[in-house]
Amino acid sequence: MPDRLGPPLTTPVFDRLALIGMGLIGSSLARVARQKNLARHIVAIDASEEVCARVSELKLADTVTSNIAEGVRDADCVILCVPVGACGSVAEAMQASLKPGAIISDVGSVKGSIVAQVAPFIPEGVHFVPAHPVAGTEQSGPDAGFPTLFLNRWCILTPPEGQDAEAIAKTRAFWEGAGSMVEEMSPAHHDLVLAITSHLPHLIAYNIVGTAADLEAVTQSEVIKFSAGGFRDFTRIAASDPTMWRDVFLNNKDAVLEMLGRFTEDLSSLQRAIRYGDGEALFNHFTRTRAIRRSIIEIGQDSAAPDFGRQPKNSAQ
Amino acid sequence: MPDRLGPPLTTPVFDRLALIGMGLIGSSLARVARQKNLARHIVAIDASEEVCARVSELKLADTVTSNIAEGVRDADCVILCVPVGACGSVAEAMQASLKPGAIISDVGSVKGSIVAQVAPFIPEGVHFVPAHPVAGTEQSGPDAGFPTLFLNRWCILTPPEGQDAEAIAKTRAFWEGAGSMVEEMSPAHHDLVLAITSHLPHLIAYNIVGTAADLEAVTQSEVIKFSAGGFRDFTRIAASDPTMWRDVFLNNKDAVLEMLGRFTEDLSSLQRAIRYGDGEALFNHFTRTRAIRRSIIEIGQDSAAPDFGRQPKNSAQ
Repeated sequence: MPDRLGPPLTTPVFDRLALIGMGLIGSSLARVARQKNLARHIVAIDASEEVCARVSELKLADTVTSNIAEGVRDADCVILCVPVGACGSVAEAMQASLKPGAIISDVGSVKGSIVAQVAPFIPEGVHFVPAHPVAGTEQSGPDAGFPTLFLNRWCILTPPEGQDAEAIAKTRAFWEGAGSMVEEMSPAHHDLVLAITSHLPHLIAYNIVGTAADLEAVTQSEVIKFSAGGFRDFTRIAASDPTMWRDVFLNNKDAVLEMLGRFTEDLSSLQRAIRYGDGEALFNHFTRTRAIRRSIIEIGQDSAAPDFGRQPKNSAQ
Repeated sequence: MPDRLGPPLTTPVFDRLALIGMGLIGSSLARVARQKNLARHIVAIDASEEVCARVSELKLADTVTSNIAEGVRDADCVILCVPVGACGSVAEAMQASLKPGAIISDVGSVKGSIVAQVAPFIPEGVHFVPAHPVAGTEQSGPDAGFPTLFLNRWCILTPPEGQDAEAIAKTRAFWEGAGSMVEEMSPAHHDLVLAITSHLPHLIAYNIVGTAADLEAVTQSEVIKFSAGGFRDFTRIAASDPTMWRDVFLNNKDAVLEMLGRFTEDLSSLQRAIRYGDGEALFNHFTRTRAIRRSIIEIGQDSAAPDFGRQPKNSAQ
């Protein structure tokens, strides 16, 4: 599996690319689009003047504006990189300015709700190809982005049935240019898959960090000092952007509640095994979970280094 | 904070050190004891002849044996590095061969139960100073160890009241020589602190990986492919040694059930916020958990690099 971005494309995928929302994802897309020549002209759009100023300073785009209608004009592709809950109003704001034949895409972590919010604002002759790059870090804002964020990560497309094949192919080419592998599925299936692989893990990480913060018998300073026993792993994803994650849970309610119900059932069964001292049940459960980690490492979706490679065996000696 | 082991001690802390159990922790102790001159002579003891052979091959000790009674003879310090559930029988096996004045210690993740198991076998005139280095990786066995495992990590001592001050001081000097910070507390308080910072995180990680493996609508291959959305973080600690973790839960039942009860209560409240679309409650919860991560990074107990530094921003470009 390649660990570097390849050479720039000879011909850009898009002539004019507009990115709306210049946080971690939007600013990483701007960086990789520039580095890999995925677009000839990059327009960065952000509602915050402060973010626009920082994007200009970082020279992430050819044009920077806070005006959506103006920014998307003449764009061949517009990618919404805003929290899931903001997609409807952004789509409404850009509707009148879209170029015929343009591709509208997004990077939202929920797909059913985004399709419902955005599709009504897509004019006849404009193509909507929703996308979700399964990539990210716990950091936010234009400074947090980097061009290899999508390298070797999956990007899931959920195009509506009958969507223009060329629009899908171009969206696919764009993400492949950014270093990703691309897969297509329905919005409903996407939301179920992500509920278990991303949304539920974030929910329980946020939850345990909250539980730890509220204890009386154990101080917060003890929780922090002795966090290397496992707890600190959870604090990383519980440090993710609160607005983004509020919107994910509000917009993927059914799938999250379904997965949470199963998680709680299973946890009750482990709890019972602890209460009744059933060592065999615990041992069997703890044994079968190892195989999944091995598979994740084998397909290159995580580091094989112990402790995520936090503590390099050699360099620290 | 130092990121390297300092120079070797001029005078070793112990003349003869016996380590029982040559897994991740025991073999890391052997390595750092050699490298930092913490003991003049190192005896490695392991019940498995295969492990003994590997320890000899790796030259981790001066003497290697599978015989506990023989291995601990004349040792100034004996450290039990076996799963919590095995400590009682190991203590019984070494009882008759202990040298008067010797220090007995251990590295178990539970302290109340180990004190209860081991204390009855400590002869008059031998000192028992239980210890727990809060350090580890998800890997096991003599090959997994490395000398910097304990560097900048906390080691908690839980000496019985009235324990010989010199024995405590020597144990402390040993761990400080291995690069650790040392703190003392009661076994009961230790078990409560570790229930939230280590035991509960492992339990819920094991649990969610099991839940994901059992789904029908989402395939295991999808769970693996799209794991970079958060799930993969949990698979790391859910790949930890099953015997060790079975013993932790069997031996710290009360504290784990207490913390699990609180966790489940809090999770029900988040679940309710999702069901009723209470965005403000979710946002507020997700905001306050960021501060704990910042503190963990500030005191050097985790990497500040995004994504645990898995994906170096520069080297992969």
